[in-house]
Amino acid sequence: MSDAESVRPLRVAVLGCGSVGSQVVRLLDEQSDDLAARIGAPLELVGVAVRRLDAPREVEVPAGLLTTDAQGLVARDDVDLVVEVIGGIEPARGLILSALEHGAAVVTANKALLAADGPTLFDAAAQAGRDLFYEASVAGAIPILRPLRESLAGDRVTRVLGIVNGTTNFILDRMDTSGAGFAEALEEAQDLGYAEADPTADVEGFDAAAKAAILASLAFHSRVTADDVHREGISEVTAADVQSAREMGSVVKLLAIAELRRNADGDEAVAVRVHPAMIPASHPLASVREAYNAVFVESRAAGQLMFYGPGAGGAPTASAVLGDLVTVARNRLSGRSGPGESAYADRPVLPMGETVTRYHVAIDVDDRAGVLAAVATSFADHGVSIQTVKQEGRGADAQLVVVSHTATDAQLAATVEQLRTMDAVREVTSVMRVEGDTE
Amino acid sequence: MSDAESVRPLRVAVLGCGSVGSQVVRLLDEQSDDLAARIGAPLELVGVAVRRLDAPREVEVPAGLLTTDAQGLVARDDVDLVVEVIGGIEPARGLILSALEHGAAVVTANKALLAADGPTLFDAAAQAGRDLFYEASVAGAIPILRPLRESLAGDRVTRVLGIVNGTTNFILDRMDTSGAGFAEALEEAQDLGYAEADPTADVEGFDAAAKAAILASLAFHSRVTADDVHREGISEVTAADVQSAREMGSVVKLLAIAELRRNADGDEAVAVRVHPAMIPASHPLASVREAYNAVFVESRAAGQLMFYGPGAGGAPTASAVLGDLVTVARNRLSGRSGPGESAYADRPVLPMGETVTRYHVAIDVDDRAGVLAAVATSFADHGVSIQTVKQEGRGADAQLVVVSHTATDAQLAATVEQLRTMDAVREVTSVMRVEGDTE
Repeated sequence: MSDAESVRPLRVAVLGCGSVGSQVVRLLDEQSDDLAARIGAPLELVGVAVRRLDAPREVEVPAGLLTTDAQGLVARDDVDLVVEVIGGIEPARGLILSALEHGAAVVTANKALLAADGPTLFDAAAQAGRDLFYEASVAGAIPILRPLRESLAGDRVTRVLGIVNGTTNFILDRMDTSGAGFAEALEEAQDLGYAEADPTADVEGFDAAAKAAILASLAFHSRVTADDVHREGISEVTAADVQSAREMGSVVKLLAIAELRRNADGDEAVAVRVHPAMIPASHPLASVREAYNAVFVESRAAGQLMFYGPGAGGAPTASAVLGDLVTVARNRLSGRSGPGESAYADRPVLPMGETVTRYHVAIDVDDRAGVLAAVATSFADHGVSIQTVKQEGRGADAQLVVVSHTATDAQLAATVEQLRTMDAVREVTSVMRVEGDTE
Repeated sequence: MSDAESVRPLRVAVLGCGSVGSQVVRLLDEQSDDLAARIGAPLELVGVAVRRLDAPREVEVPAGLLTTDAQGLVARDDVDLVVEVIGGIEPARGLILSALEHGAAVVTANKALLAADGPTLFDAAAQAGRDLFYEASVAGAIPILRPLRESLAGDRVTRVLGIVNGTTNFILDRMDTSGAGFAEALEEAQDLGYAEADPTADVEGFDAAAKAAILASLAFHSRVTADDVHREGISEVTAADVQSAREMGSVVKLLAIAELRRNADGDEAVAVRVHPAMIPASHPLASVREAYNAVFVESRAAGQLMFYGPGAGGAPTASAVLGDLVTVARNRLSGRSGPGESAYADRPVLPMGETVTRYHVAIDVDDRAGVLAAVATSFADHGVSIQTVKQEGRGADAQLVVVSHTATDAQLAATVEQLRTMDAVREVTSVMRVEGDTE
């Protein structure tokens, strides 16, 4: 440790002092000896950019370090490492670009920015010859980006299935365990602090879609942005869906899915989407409870891997930030940068219509002879093969639950459209994808 | 990719062509374009050292590449990267040392060697300024060493609990699901190829102990060898133990445990051990079935993380080897080495007697008044606090099952020793540790 302390300190600026930033500041202080020993030089916090100097904070920050001039902080010549935990697009983007231009390496937790405009940042980092690390942007404390980028670099990832949003997993878990509907479970999540007053970003899948784009980019060495991600949230998942899943030995989860698939031209393409799906209770992701996150990775040689842990929270996210900080600090000391963006494969994004999966379709129908045959014919006419069908009489009407074999999204959509026009069909009450098979 | 191909290839020698080595050779060929793009230079296989040139192999190796002269291969001036997948202590150790001396970086899967004599290898690597990477040595394809070494470098790991031996997990899982005894489950594992004809290394915990030493060294930045690991295998686990675990909502797993604990002097020490233990069915490790592996990590900021996947097998292990190979190849290209051994904390190993955990003790006693009081007094006299006790009459005798609060191993051992001398005690039929509580 004496070696480390005789070296010039590496100077760190932290942008943002909310729940993550304040934990970063705390850990930089508490772990300073360990950090110095692991890096080979001490870290010195030289500034913390905040919006308001007098806002209440989780940690005591020496007043001399606080500044409202974030731009001035990143432009300082003596800053080696910048941690960006403000979030959102601007001013975060401008500050990161400025930090890189001024020669600092950057660690960020900003999933929205990376998913919206990652390439701009990656190009700037490459141009500057500086590291841009972002492990904390996906699944909080869970090391998943580094394993995808480095541990699996000699393998061929074929699919990533992630539970990457804690709020929605908490809600769906509650619906599963208590039989509650979506609204009731959301309210409980809000009461317990797992969901925000405006839960849109979580429950409509925007947060998960940003993470899906980041995972897909890394797994498939291609540029994928949030706009490329087909997105459906969980606000239309009903207690009946959850019950129906349970009857077939499954649970409903909001999944971020990125897969390698052949497109219509026969080229390898990246299929990337976020939607609720039924997965078998025996699947490792099915036992991810409450607000935990997990990412399940299938690769050709390694087989099936899963990475599990807390997907959010100040301290867990700060752990991921500091892990990156140690690496970029080591790189900085040795005058180099780590592996940058890898987008050499440059695969196209598969249109959602060509995405292949299985489907669970619930249909209210008249309870009369010939209805099942008519419904089955409609599936067959669109090339959707049926795996199981269950009919339940309920007086004058009946419910059909059809689970299909794999079909394209376009085939299924056309089937459902036709079903809705059929006289005997009162309502297609639910369409949900079935995932988690291993092919 | 054209950039990568215009660079001088990095030359790779593979030592050993068994189930892992042959998959490494296969993947080097199949993935050559991707590897070149990810590294920035192509890899060129220049030699494969084998014991017998004419042995049957899983892959076709060009005859010109095969050699029985491993020492000659690693001493070649033109070899940049050496993959050691022979296993065992010698000749592997001599070959790795020679490879490092001759300027090659080394990737190895050799847990036995690392656990027995890691420091010699790490010192040689530091001396040579070359990488020595060994992700594949623990838990096969599961990225666990890199996350411990890098992702959690800014955090403080407090405990690692691992299911790191697939054979014993398969046996215990079978005992749990079918009620079979150890011998029967072992036979099934042997029939299915999950256990070797001589299963000692697996069932007696030697394999897991080597991995525990490697995990403890990395997690706690200290030198821990296999000799430091308290080791008990699963051959004495009975169907009754498994049943008793089930009655208390637990399962029996062979765990590799490494914890940070205060020793008698009040210093931080590393407690490291391998033994069967009961863990709650709700613990994430409890759902690790069949021959899968998983490593559960508790750290101060990140909280609870779990890494899950196949812990053995040619292709999964080769995936981990190639992930390391990409990193060391990149480092080689940029003329540097990655993070080396980190043993700065230099913590002592905690004596097993000072290790603290909970215990499940089954005792056959005479079924008469005062026996329970006498047994309870014995626990109390040794400072072992009882959490629950269950008595079941069986004619003239009865069985007591005592689950304790936390106590030291020495306290528990003294208690059991005294119990065995008591008139009313016919036999202490089982003593098993209870793990997986979070403190």
